Amino acid sequence: MNPVELIRKKRNGGELTPDELRWIITAYVQDRLPDYQMSALLMAVFFRGMTDTETSTFTDLMLHSGAVIDLSGIPGIKVDKHSTGGVGDKVSLILAPMVAACGVPVPMISGRGLGHTGGTLDKLESIPGFRTDLSVEEYKKVIAEVGMVLIGQTKDVAPADRRMYALRDVTGTVESIPLISGSIMSKKLAEGIDALVLDVKTGDGAFMQSDADAEALASTLVRIGTMAGKTTVAFLTSMDQPLGMAIGNWVEVVESVECLRGKKVPDLMEVTLVLGGAMVMLGGKARSIEEGMALCQSAIWSGRAYEKFLEGVRRQGGATDVLEQPDRYPAPRFVEEILSPADGVVTHFQTRRIGVLAAELGAGRLRSDDVIEPKAGIMLLKKLGDPVRRGEPIARVMGDREGSFHRVAGDLARCIRCGPPEGTPRPTIGAVVDANGKRPWTTPIVH
Amino acid sequence: MNPVELIRKKRNGGELTPDELRWIITAYVQDRLPDYQMSALLMAVFFRGMTDTETSTFTDLMLHSGAVIDLSGIPGIKVDKHSTGGVGDKVSLILAPMVAACGVPVPMISGRGLGHTGGTLDKLESIPGFRTDLSVEEYKKVIAEVGMVLIGQTKDVAPADRRMYALRDVTGTVESIPLISGSIMSKKLAEGIDALVLDVKTGDGAFMQSDADAEALASTLVRIGTMAGKTTVAFLTSMDQPLGMAIGNWVEVVESVECLRGKKVPDLMEVTLVLGGAMVMLGGKARSIEEGMALCQSAIWSGRAYEKFLEGVRRQGGATDVLEQPDRYPAPRFVEEILSPADGVVTHFQTRRIGVLAAELGAGRLRSDDVIEPKAGIMLLKKLGDPVRRGEPIARVMGDREGSFHRVAGDLARCIRCGPPEGTPRPTIGAVVDANGKRPWTTPIVH
Repeated sequence: MNPVELIRKKRNGGELTPDELRWIITAYVQDRLPDYQMSALLMAVFFRGMTDTETSTFTDLMLHSGAVIDLSGIPGIKVDKHSTGGVGDKVSLILAPMVAACGVPVPMISGRGLGHTGGTLDKLESIPGFRTDLSVEEYKKVIAEVGMVLIGQTKDVAPADRRMYALRDVTGTVESIPLISGSIMSKKLAEGIDALVLDVKTGDGAFMQSDADAEALASTLVRIGTMAGKTTVAFLTSMDQPLGMAIGNWVEVVESVECLRGKKVPDLMEVTLVLGGAMVMLGGKARSIEEGMALCQSAIWSGRAYEKFLEGVRRQGGATDVLEQPDRYPAPRFVEEILSPADGVVTHFQTRRIGVLAAELGAGRLRSDDVIEPKAGIMLLKKLGDPVRRGEPIARVMGDREGSFHRVAGDLARCIRCGPPEGTPRPTIGAVVDANGKRPWTTPIVH
Repeated sequence: MNPVELIRKKRNGGELTPDELRWIITAYVQDRLPDYQMSALLMAVFFRGMTDTETSTFTDLMLHSGAVIDLSGIPGIKVDKHSTGGVGDKVSLILAPMVAACGVPVPMISGRGLGHTGGTLDKLESIPGFRTDLSVEEYKKVIAEVGMVLIGQTKDVAPADRRMYALRDVTGTVESIPLISGSIMSKKLAEGIDALVLDVKTGDGAFMQSDADAEALASTLVRIGTMAGKTTVAFLTSMDQPLGMAIGNWVEVVESVECLRGKKVPDLMEVTLVLGGAMVMLGGKARSIEEGMALCQSAIWSGRAYEKFLEGVRRQGGATDVLEQPDRYPAPRFVEEILSPADGVVTHFQTRRIGVLAAELGAGRLRSDDVIEPKAGIMLLKKLGDPVRRGEPIARVMGDREGSFHRVAGDLARCIRCGPPEGTPRPTIGAVVDANGKRPWTTPIVH
């Protein structure tokens, strides 16, 4: 095939056939299609999109560019969760043991933080000794024994995606719904799951900042999952503010442990319980999301979720003493409090910017080779709508890097607006999308 | 600067500043901006376009990426012509000596054929011994002595464009008005001209197949030339049918010689005289295009244009005996005539396809490393609107390559439609565009 004609076809709005897509992916992986042609094609896809058939063919080709893990030998319906990425999103750390404690195996392959978003792997690795680089055999063994496993993407899974994602990252072609969908779903379908729950973020701190884009992404993800024979449910959740109070790595682990021990951080636990309820339902242990939520709630109250977490950490080499007694963890060199400039309530967070500032403190990566500083981070002391008084602390900044610390603290103060109330913040969970379409999510959480 | 942010800015419809464009071109030429980022940016430009300021800055940066030839030591107003490329377009071969014979120096740097279009260099090189690879010093010497020179692009001229054009060719980013304009004008402005006449083709056999695109390209080219201080005039001319009767290399040289000796090939000589009239006017030897046309006409009638051509060929090492007696040139191995399938008139040419077929015969290049066969080509025996009888020859196919010859001859028959008249063909020259805008071109040619 002639790669230039394929690029021109997509550029002019045409639909690439399965054979054409297969030729492209195969040639790319085999180094016969150079990066400069692939990046031109990716930019054409950015502008022209992909049809449903193209998107699912593309996903399938990326999935089969590498190993597809077979977990059919392990009993139970295996269910995973994937989030499109946000600020303060430590849901996986609470969710995996909570759902596993309900009897649903959770094989979870997570990513690292990049840009303004954090990554589950970086958070887990702030626990001394925790190993995320298990082999496929170890991965299967841990899920069989513990009922949950938390690892990073192995080299064998979806190599076409790994290479293409690196190219997209440096060519301004990340923000494309079919490309994002193909990337997420090829990896998720490769890990051996039977069903999938998705947390599609929307708002300032999300990759998809508009509700319409987030909804389109959720629909595409659900469609691909469904076509691949995996029941898939997506929730649209708000990134108007960071999720929970902690933003960073170790601070997020601490907040997760607190929630596993029963602490009520409203928005964080609402998202965790709803996603968990759906996972328990898809795992065949409840007839509805609501019934699943009740089971999850009792896994927390009974202490079984926390015990499962400690078991999982121990099984993957992590130290549990600092989890039980977080005071033993080294303290950050610098701590500074941000004070409210006015009486009133918290009216606005620049969530994306807060994510970038946390990364600049050392909690994340602005470039893929940046080194993480586990103790660095931000603790919010107030959330949207919370009453504040002038001079009252609203956030705490922590870090070790003298060079950037004070500038970041100064910048952070400008990212949180306080004053007279500006209406009610929107619900954390906006809607649920499944194979039957989208419907608003209205079930209240009973704490 | 961050290349990803620059790509995203253009992708999202922003305007790149002169500093940003300078950084991009400089980094690209110095191998600090890789091809895969440049191709993503070029595709974003394809979709988003460029503002006037961006286009002229871009052109200026490409122009100054290499040597800018200084012809100010040579007396007279130096004028060149550039065509956007067509099928059977041998205008330069007649035009350069005709205008030079009127006393206007013509420094002409031409290109090679690619795709369905022919190239002046390939045509000239079908003349035994003709050298197109003169050094800049030789180039200056020939223009000073002969009043005309016909060479290829040197390595020193606009290296950024040469490299970027090669990338565009393999990444489906050729058909972009600002990119085409920057590529053409950076090379033309580098050759030391004082004024420029442009032949912007429109219709099936042109790169710009719609009149609107061709007009937009003409306006952009005129604007860039004017902003660079060079008087620039563009003509929109039809590529609904090949220009003249001959398509190939040697056959086009022969047709050019015949026209220089007074043969009247209507559409070909109309374009040549109008472009020549404009060049003579811009060269200060006539007060209007029409007066310039009359001078060109008399340069032909008097034999001075033909003498100038022979002088130029001789000066650049070419044999003139075969020009005087074309029968001495080797004959093609295969010749086949295409017959009219019906009584009536010629109603339609698939001009682009005819150009591709000529290239497949060996007259052109479908890939840049294809080898040219000088004798290969197509002679039209009839043009649009010419009456034909069923079984009468309408074209002749010539070539040496047994493998493709008969298939091409069969395909060519399907590219020429004959039957009852379908209205009058449009005029060959549609409009003229200069710094004052566009106006229809209505001056008739008196042969």
